[in-house]
Amino acid sequence: MALFTGALLAAVIIVVAGDCKPRSAFTAKMTSSMNGDPEKNLPIVFDSVLTNVGNDYNPTDGKFTTRIAGTYVFSLTLMSKLSSDSTAFGCLLLNGKEQVCVWSNGINGHEMSSNTITVKLKSGDVVDNILKAGTRFALHNAGQAGYCSFTGFLLYPEV
Amino acid sequence: MALFTGALLAAVIIVVAGDCKPRSAFTAKMTSSMNGDPEKNLPIVFDSVLTNVGNDYNPTDGKFTTRIAGTYVFSLTLMSKLSSDSTAFGCLLLNGKEQVCVWSNGINGHEMSSNTITVKLKSGDVVDNILKAGTRFALHNAGQAGYCSFTGFLLYPEV
Amino acid sequence: MALFTGALLAAVIIVVAGDCKPRSAFTAKMTSSMNGDPEKNLPIVFDSVLTNVGNDYNPTDGKFTTRIAGTYVFSLTLMSKLSSDSTAFGCLLLNGKEQVCVWSNGINGHEMSSNTITVKLKSGDVVDNILKAGTRFALHNAGQAGYCSFTGFLLYPEV
Repeated sequence: MALFTGALLAAVIIVVAGDCKPRSAFTAKMTSSMNGDPEKNLPIVFDSVLTNVGNDYNPTDGKFTTRIAGTYVFSLTLMSKLSSDSTAFGCLLLNGKEQVCVWSNGINGHEMSSNTITVKLKSGDVVDNILKAGTRFALHNAGQAGYCSFTGFLLYPEV
Repeated sequence: MALFTGALLAAVIIVVAGDCKPRSAFTAKMTSSMNGDPEKNLPIVFDSVLTNVGNDYNPTDGKFTTRIAGTYVFSLTLMSKLSSDSTAFGCLLLNGKEQVCVWSNGINGHEMSSNTITVKLKSGDVVDNILKAGTRFALHNAGQAGYCSFTGFLLYPEV
Repeated sequence: MALFTGALLAAVIIVVAGDCKPRSAFTAKMTSSMNGDPEKNLPIVFDSVLTNVGNDYNPTDGKFTTRIAGTYVFSLTLMSKLSSDSTAFGCLLLNGKEQVCVWSNGINGHEMSSNTITVKLKSGDVVDNILKAGTRFALHNAGQAGYCSFTGFLLYPEV
């Protein structure tokens, strides 16, 4: 009986731990500005990490790689350069495929825009962002202000 | 004793499942543009579903209907048309009552704005969005870019 | 044996409650407009509470004080005044230190911008927001529209 109860305790701990403990959450900011390439999309690398629970976001290449399968939330914020013909135009990708985009025109001043999604991810799935091809597309940043930022977190682990 | 332990196991599983498993999360994008009506608010229908865990969001009428009571997070993003007198002006409603609004002017170019809230919902509560009445109010979209998007998720089920 | 099983039940309830029940979530809106001070940053007080699970946000001073240590999500949204030389320029602070900022120019009309972060907090940590010093910095609001809003919620309690 004691053995059975001990096994029960172990089972309960596993269920509780398996259901409630998986964690992944990050925010990274971009600290420099960047200009679009005339011919190809460029990866946006948010180089300064504010939070990185689980270390699933890589600040050297801008990629989030899914360690824990589940439902995630992502939020992308971009700021335009101040220029009459410049626009911040970027998109969030899942395994290279655009999920949503952000557009902010800088015609009369810097401006910021954001987009937020939920998405189901499998282990190994990659989420990152691109600045769209075109010389009129560009991003503005200033030190640690975080005008361009990328945030994500695990909402529900897969069970 | 074995009976008691079995009952205990069942009780624990119910507590754990009841607390950690209820799930609801969606993101939908609008794929066409729309113009405001001069006299009445219009429902915004985000017709293209990216995620719909629990199927609580209906892409045919734009309504989220609460299946699981609890605390939710919602985020609304809208984009303006490019026009000197056009503005994206919409609001998020709970059971027909405005909670927060989003405003983005298109005076010199398309622009996006967002708002994010937490809100406690009862089973059956409806959350949806309106484009405010007025011929100067309008929304711009382009295919699957998701310039206008609606996201929500269950944060804490009621216990 | 009954005693041991009873103790086990209590232990399980504590584990489940400790892991899954801590809750903190709020949204507050600002109902009046404000102008920047030429010489010092001003606290932004979101005076109208939409949600305040746990009562950790104080609408009289605009401060969120951490009751439960853990990983949180915060979202700040600001709207500019309509003025050729006015900008909404505010930042979200953790214990007085800027984490991210929001910028929205009002050169040709009201405009909104947002930023969203995840951040790890210890019990007692304070998160609030400032309007940056400068007479050109200002915020516009109108009643309960929530053009300027502050949202936060506990994602993962520390365990």
